[in-house]
Formats: sequence, C-alpha cells, structure tokens
Amino acid sequence: MAKSDIEIAREATMQPITEIGSKLGIPADQVLQYGPYKGKLSFDFINSLDSKPDGKLILVTAITPTPAGEGKTTTTVGLGDGLNRIGKKAAICLREPSQGPCFGMKGGAAGGGYAQVVPMEDINLHFTGDFHAIGIAHNLLSALIDNHIYWGNELGIDLRRVSWRRVVDMNDRSLRSIVSSLGGVSNGFPREDGFDIVVASEVMAIFCLAKDLNDLTERLSRIVVAQRRDKSPVTAGDLMAPGPMAVLLKDAISPNLVQTLENNPAFIHGGPFANIAHGCNSVIATRTALKLADYVVTEAGFGADLGAEKFFDIKCRKAGLKPAAAVVVATIRALKMHGGVAKENLGQENVEAVKKGCSNLARHLANVKSFGVPVVVAINRFSADTDAEVAAVQEVAKTQGAKAILCNHWAEGSKGTEELAHEVVRVVDSQTANFSPIYPDDMPLWDKVKTIATRLYGASDIIADKAVRNRFKELEDMGYGDLPVCMAKTQYSFSTDPNLKGAPSGHVVPVRELRLSAGAGFVVAICGEIMTMPGLPRVPSAHNIKLDANGQIEGLF
Amino acid sequence: MAKSDIEIAREATMQPITEIGSKLGIPADQVLQYGPYKGKLSFDFINSLDSKPDGKLILVTAITPTPAGEGKTTTTVGLGDGLNRIGKKAAICLREPSQGPCFGMKGGAAGGGYAQVVPMEDINLHFTGDFHAIGIAHNLLSALIDNHIYWGNELGIDLRRVSWRRVVDMNDRSLRSIVSSLGGVSNGFPREDGFDIVVASEVMAIFCLAKDLNDLTERLSRIVVAQRRDKSPVTAGDLMAPGPMAVLLKDAISPNLVQTLENNPAFIHGGPFANIAHGCNSVIATRTALKLADYVVTEAGFGADLGAEKFFDIKCRKAGLKPAAAVVVATIRALKMHGGVAKENLGQENVEAVKKGCSNLARHLANVKSFGVPVVVAINRFSADTDAEVAAVQEVAKTQGAKAILCNHWAEGSKGTEELAHEVVRVVDSQTANFSPIYPDDMPLWDKVKTIATRLYGASDIIADKAVRNRFKELEDMGYGDLPVCMAKTQYSFSTDPNLKGAPSGHVVPVRELRLSAGAGFVVAICGEIMTMPGLPRVPSAHNIKLDANGQIEGLF
Repeated sequence: MAKSDIEIAREATMQPITEIGSKLGIPADQVLQYGPYKGKLSFDFINSLDSKPDGKLILVTAITPTPAGEGKTTTTVGLGDGLNRIGKKAAICLREPSQGPCFGMKGGAAGGGYAQVVPMEDINLHFTGDFHAIGIAHNLLSALIDNHIYWGNELGIDLRRVSWRRVVDMNDRSLRSIVSSLGGVSNGFPREDGFDIVVASEVMAIFCLAKDLNDLTERLSRIVVAQRRDKSPVTAGDLMAPGPMAVLLKDAISPNLVQTLENNPAFIHGGPFANIAHGCNSVIATRTALKLADYVVTEAGFGADLGAEKFFDIKCRKAGLKPAAAVVVATIRALKMHGGVAKENLGQENVEAVKKGCSNLARHLANVKSFGVPVVVAINRFSADTDAEVAAVQEVAKTQGAKAILCNHWAEGSKGTEELAHEVVRVVDSQTANFSPIYPDDMPLWDKVKTIATRLYGASDIIADKAVRNRFKELEDMGYGDLPVCMAKTQYSFSTDPNLKGAPSGHVVPVRELRLSAGAGFVVAICGEIMTMPGLPRVPSAHNIKLDANGQIEGLF
Repeated sequence: MAKSDIEIAREATMQPITEIGSKLGIPADQVLQYGPYKGKLSFDFINSLDSKPDGKLILVTAITPTPAGEGKTTTTVGLGDGLNRIGKKAAICLREPSQGPCFGMKGGAAGGGYAQVVPMEDINLHFTGDFHAIGIAHNLLSALIDNHIYWGNELGIDLRRVSWRRVVDMNDRSLRSIVSSLGGVSNGFPREDGFDIVVASEVMAIFCLAKDLNDLTERLSRIVVAQRRDKSPVTAGDLMAPGPMAVLLKDAISPNLVQTLENNPAFIHGGPFANIAHGCNSVIATRTALKLADYVVTEAGFGADLGAEKFFDIKCRKAGLKPAAAVVVATIRALKMHGGVAKENLGQENVEAVKKGCSNLARHLANVKSFGVPVVVAINRFSADTDAEVAAVQEVAKTQGAKAILCNHWAEGSKGTEELAHEVVRVVDSQTANFSPIYPDDMPLWDKVKTIATRLYGASDIIADKAVRNRFKELEDMGYGDLPVCMAKTQYSFSTDPNLKGAPSGHVVPVRELRLSAGAGFVVAICGEIMTMPGLPRVPSAHNIKLDANGQIEGLF
C-alpha cells in the first residue's frame, strides 16, 4: 500500500533550519528560529541584500481545476527539488495554508507524496503565527471602528455603510451574517456585520503586496472601512489604526523559511484568497528569495486565467517583478474531464477526450505567452496515464511552442522532475521572456475588466447593470481608476459558469459588484457568487483529528 | 528623569534562552526556540523529571488593589532575582498577559523598573502564540456546535440554551451581544450569541489546570456547552471536539521560558481571568519549575481574598501543590487609600491613615495563615514613603506574626529584595507550613461559598434568590457538588461593594448566578457584575502605538 503524505513527511530527515538557510548564504544568527525546523529571516539581513542581483523567477500555474486534481503545489516543490538536483541554486516560494479548512475537508496544503514541504503539520496549523497576527490586526481595526462610533462618531461614519467586517481563522458559517452591538447602551449601536475567514482579509492582501514595513503601514492607512452618509470614504488612517496594526504585524512580515523533503529551502509566507484577492505568496518573500537563489519557483492560486493573470497584472506589475518563465501544470485525468469524461471513467484510456480537453491547456498557454512569458507544460503523472495520452498532450503543447514533460515527483521526488528542471533552465536561460502586464495602469477600469475577459477568457463582452456601472464611475471619480482589477469569478471555467469545461468562447461575463481594496491596491470585480466564509461539512474532518498515545497528530491528512 | 519600563527593558543584556535554561539544568536541545530569547520546553524533557524532588513553592499575593497600585508582578520578579542574588536556585512563574488591553489602557504586564521579564514587548503581544491557540481551539468548538445544529441537531441542543460563546483577544464591546446565523437558510439557525476576551475562555482555565495532554483532552470533553429542552447537558465530548482542540493546543501547552532583567529563569504560561476563573499560571509550568528549581515564586491575580484563595482552594488542591510560604505585597500609598486618603493626597505623610488602612493588610495575613501558609509582607517602596509610615506597617504585620520588609526592586533590582529573599528563605526553611484548603471537597456548594464569605471576607452571610438556590441544587444533582467554587466578585473590596475599602465586616454577599465550568473543574459563583469583554476607552492607547523609523515599537508602554 502506498504511504500517506503524513507518513512520508514523518519519515523525512529534516535538517536544522539554520543549515537550510546556510545553503542560501543566510548566517545562522539572522534566522529567528521557531523550533528547530522553522525560521523567520531578520529584516536587518533582508535589507542588507538590496544591492545583490536578482535570480530568475518561475511561475507555476495550472489548467482550469477539476475534481481530478492537478497538483500545482506538489509540482512547485518537485521543480524546486529538481533544479537543486541538477546543480542549480534554487528556492521555492509558497503560500501559507489556511488553518480553518483543515477541520472541514480532509487535506493539507503542503504538497504531496515525495514532493512536500516540512514540518507539514506545523505548516498546516499555527505555523509561525502569521495568520493569527493578521487576524488580530484586522479585528483591532474592526474594534476601533465601533469604538469610534460608540464615543461620538466624530468622523460621521454611516452605520449602514461599514464595509470592514471581522475575521476568524475558522470555517464558521454562523458568523457570515450577524447583528452586533446588541444588549443596550454600553455595548454600542446595533448594526449588521459579519465575519470572513482570515485569508479573505484585505490585511492579508496588503501583507502580501507590501514591500516593507513602511509600505505596509501606508497601505494599511489607505484601507477604506466605511462611508459617510454622503458616501465619502472613511479610512483606517482616519481611525489612527495603521500604527498598532503594523506593530501587531511586525514579526509576521518576515518571511518564513522551511525545507522540502529533500532539504532544499522553501519560503512559505502569506496566503490571500485567489478570488477576492490576488492569491500569491508575499512580495517580501519572493524578493528575498530572488536575492538569495539563482532560480525561484513560485505558484499562484487556481488556474492560470485567475492565478497567473493576477500574479502578472497585480503582483509583478506592482512589485516590479519580471518572470522568466511559467510552468503550466496539467494531468491526463483533468484534461479528460475537460474533454467530457465523467470522474468515474478517468481510469480508462481515452486519447480523443484528452485531445479535446487540451483546448483548455492550449488557451492557458496562449494566455501566458501573451504576457511575454515563455511556457513549459508539466504533466503530473498518474499511474493510469498511457503513452498515447501523453503524446497527445505533447503535440498540443508543441503547437503553442511549448514542451510538455512527464513528471513523476509525487512518487520519486526530484528524480521525477529532472527533465522538467532541465527544460525550465533552458527556457529561462534563453532569455526569451519579455514580460509586460496585459493592460496599462491608465486604462479605464471597465476596459481593464473587458480586456481580461475578451483576451484571456474568450468572452465576447462584459455586462453590468446600472448600479454597477455607476460604481465603476464612482471609483474612478474617487481617484482609484489607475488600480489594477482583481477578478473574482469561478475557478472552474474560463466563463462564469462552472460547468463549462474546456475552452468556451463567445460567452458574456456579468460584473455583479465592484469592491474597493484601496490598501491592497486593486478593485475587485465580482463576477459570480464568492464565498468568503466557508462552512463545515456534515461530517467535518475534525471528528477524526486527535492526538495519539505518543502525542502525534492523527487524522489531519 | 527616571527611565521608562521599556527603556530599561531595551537596555537589558539578554542571554540566549538556552543559556537561561542551562541554569536550571535544561539541555539546549530540549528548549524549542521562538527567536533567541523565548523558548518552550519539550514534553519529553518535562516527563523525564517525574522522579525528581520538588522545590519550595512561594506565592506572591497582595492587599486589596487600589488605583495607587501594588506591584505584585514586579515583586514576584524582584523576589525571584533576590533569591538568585543570595545564592539560591530560584525560578519565577507568571501568567501571560492579555494582548487586547494593551490597545486600550496604556501599560504592560511584565513587571516594572528594574524588576521585569524580557523580551517584554513580545511577552505583551503575541508571545509564543499560546493565546491565539487557545482562542482558535475555543472557536472551533463554537463552530462545531452551530455546525451540528445546522446539519440536523441530532443531539437535540436547545438553541436558547447554548452557553458556550465565542472569543477574540481584543477589547471589543460590540461583540458582547450579537445575533448570529442571520442571512438565510445556508447560514444556519439565528440565535443569541456573544464574544468574550480569550482570557475568559474556559479553555484557558482548563489549559492552566491540566496536568498533561491526556488530562487536557479529558477536561475538554467535560465542558458543558449547552442544554437540551429537558436541561440535560450537552458536552464538548458529545460533539467530538476535544481531539482537534487538543491538536490545536499541543504546542501551546508546553511552558514558555524567558528571563528577568538579571538573566534569571522565568516561566510565563497561561493567563486565566481572576474573576470567572482562578487567575494563576499553568499547573504544568509550576510543576516543571518545582522540579528544576529549589525555590519557585509565583503570583495569583487580584488581592489575596480572590487570588490566594483560588490559588489554594482550586489550583493547589487539584494539582496537589503544597505552598511553603506566601508574600503579601502592600504599598504605603495603597494602605493610605484603604485608610481613607484620596489619591491626590497620597504624597503627604499620614501615619494614622496607614494604620487604619492596615486593617486590610491584617485581614489578608490572617486569611492566608488560615490555610496553614506562613506569611511575609513586602512593602513595595515609593520615594515618598516615610520611616514612620513603614514602621506602622511593620507593627501591624508583627501582630500577625509576620515580618514586613521594605523592598526597592523597582529602582534597584535584586539589591532591593535581598532582605526579603533572606526572610522568605528563613520562613520556608523553618518548615512551618501545613497547607490545607479552607473547605473539604464534600461540603455542599452553598456552604463552600458561605465558608469563603464568612471566614475570609468578613461577611455575616450569603444570600441568593430562589432561581439561584435551585441552581445550587441542580448542579449538585448533576454530580458537580464536589467541585471547588470560584468566586467572581469585585477585586476592590472584601465585600461586593467596590467602595468599601479597609476590612469591612458583617456585610452580606449576594450570589447572583452560578456558572458551571465542568472542564476546568469548578463552579463559578457570581457575586456582582462581571465583565468578560472589556471595551476600549475614548482615546485608546492604540492611537499612540506605532513603529518608529527603526522598526521599534513606540507608545505601547
């Protein structure tokens, strides 16, 4: 029987985190240890790197996700290990997983098989406390808003127009919509409120886009928390919140260093939602890794239509990053689903379905290339895959000028990504990348959304009702017209219909709502139902999670 | 100008935490580091200590608190340093401060002057994440309750009788009373709910009374979260919550090691409220310290009527601890206030007022002695204190068979507590202690409350209306009659009237409500208004807190 992820992870021989750091030239005393296998880099050290040249940045993204699974994180880890295996100085950059979902659906978010980051239990639970810090910084701002209203509301906040909610790092549907400040005079003014999960906090997005502590504080000040009756904005800065929020975040903002099962360095830092936020790890971690390694492999959330687009148009644009290549992860199984095969029939060879499903892959490849970034396809191998199916994918990739490489890192670790690593290095070193975002800053917000929808999603147009169109104008009038847009749509289709697999065309994208994330620095275009507070299932995995007689965690993964 | 606490703390030369550990014989690899100056002890190491003999346990408690301040934590730190100064192997055990209040009223909780524990900013903020872990474990149980109801409510929980609230580590009055699960079918069944601050969580009290991880899990199972329509209890165990809660707490439950300004070892672990809970640091930390040091100095919350009584009747009784001595902290200023002097006149000598106020001190001394614990009085010196005033206190102490010693640790560190340390050692080594709780386990709950009120508070009787008296009976019928009681009354008076200073007698203590903390293992007798969620003041200290240009915290202390 195959070993489970946790069994494999527990068999790992971890090296002290200072030794991992030394592989990147980090002095031991610049790693603040959180136990022997987790560390945070000191800011003194990070600041000392400014004049060093940058390594090459490689994005791992994926085809449109299906229930069959793609293995993006696993491939990111596998590629990082593969690059190290072929003698390159490489580091990986991942997002921190959210703790809440661990108690709902089974499954962690630290890779799988022989391509994992460790200590995986820590990484999936409290880790170094970053999400706790972000949650409490968020809730301090919430408390300051209601406290301001309580003591006289000098700023004239309209109680009906407080857009800043509260957060908790837990799947808790009963907190989605509440009425707060009940119970009489001493508890304040009753109003509608609600909680999101911590990864949905704008503080999380800010944390991940900030260049340093100063930039963090400035971004926090710009958060719009409410409006007055005349709709003029009230900001976190008006409430004098950014100072104490930054104090709460000052340790968290340092990147976390851990290791892969093969003892290669991995930075895991920040983890914003990929729908209402941009879904990438922190700019500080990515930049630090680029100073320390020659090759940095990072991933973005969901499929390339959402994850890669936001990585390019939001993170790279704002942080001045120049990606050198992208890897698009696909599986034969997932491509078959895009080709119309039901989940229960994925075990049977079906070359035609694979070819049909490759329409999805082909569009993602074309999309990534349209940002000036060369691509490689990683086929994350499953045992039932046949040679003919793999050949079909390779052929489609070739039409897009890309090589598709079969990878077996889940079962073999870096041995299974050697070929991928060589091809990525070849592409990167060929210096064919010529990155630019897909729309300019000064394009009107409406046109930005339309550009993404028509050029990347295959849509014929976007639509919105009058109130939403007014909101586009309102945001531009308020001076937010030069922000990038952050698309919040289903991750399961290029369209807004999650059932439309493959590469649908000619559909229309309805924009239902615009939300301003002024601190993060983007306008969220909501094109579908977006859930910012998950619930627990009927039988949550919490029921099986416990400590065994030796104090080891059982049932978490 | 005198240096501020933070200035003094920043001038400290801290030693690596492994070096501090080595003073107690802790091998470096058994200290899990959280940065260079904070560590958690491994459970393997703690378990290896079982057969070692225990050191002597010394409680630091205080007279009834006044706005003049007493300096209990400062004296605990000072005495620990003093004992080390005179050549004893001594450690201190403190509670972890709550983070929320830091953003409301100015002031930390890590000692003061030259008697502090460091790194004080860390200790006052996230520290090693224990409170975050406790908060999220608490909220996981909350989510599981509502999730159970959502999916069919097999256990038959009465929505009106869910007593388990939610928590956040923030002063946020608007969350005291809410209606949750609004917004329609998919968000559950609307009901009344509310948030407490994390220190008020029963998980916090359990955390601090658990002997090990097994005991923790068993206590968590016993938590009563709700009742059915027939009032039968529903427990956390019924909801299968203890397993994942223990998983969330497994790192937090290890004691934290830090150091004093004089580089002596300090365990800071757990921090339950001293009103609805017992107000002491964790049993695990205290027991571990007793295995490692010859003298262990710890403190309890509020004045001795609440703090020492609960330390003796709840913590020592249940953990089998035998305190060897107690130090009662007083200041001349506070005694003057008990003698009727207004705050603005405390600078003037007033021997008569001191004498009058000593009625408060005398009763606390008699009370502590009634537990079979010998006492020493520490007069925490202020510059305006006169010799005549000090002599007056010494005379009163003598009538109780105790020496009152002038201490100057705030200004001088251990040099200022040398005499106190010598006297404490003399009392401890005389082995006059013969500890026993003030009431037996099998006394009826009503009589337990009455015993405390009449024997310690000077009350003539206790009263309660019929519903409350029925609740006494109900809890006994349910099998909780053998639990100790946890008194929740004002800390500002022996009576339930905060304005009655000194040593009032003949008053009647009304019991307004009984709350069951079945997991912690006590019944809370509420005798006054108890606030479990503070608010922020009009001008919260958050307004002044920020990072300076060097990334150092400004305005927190």
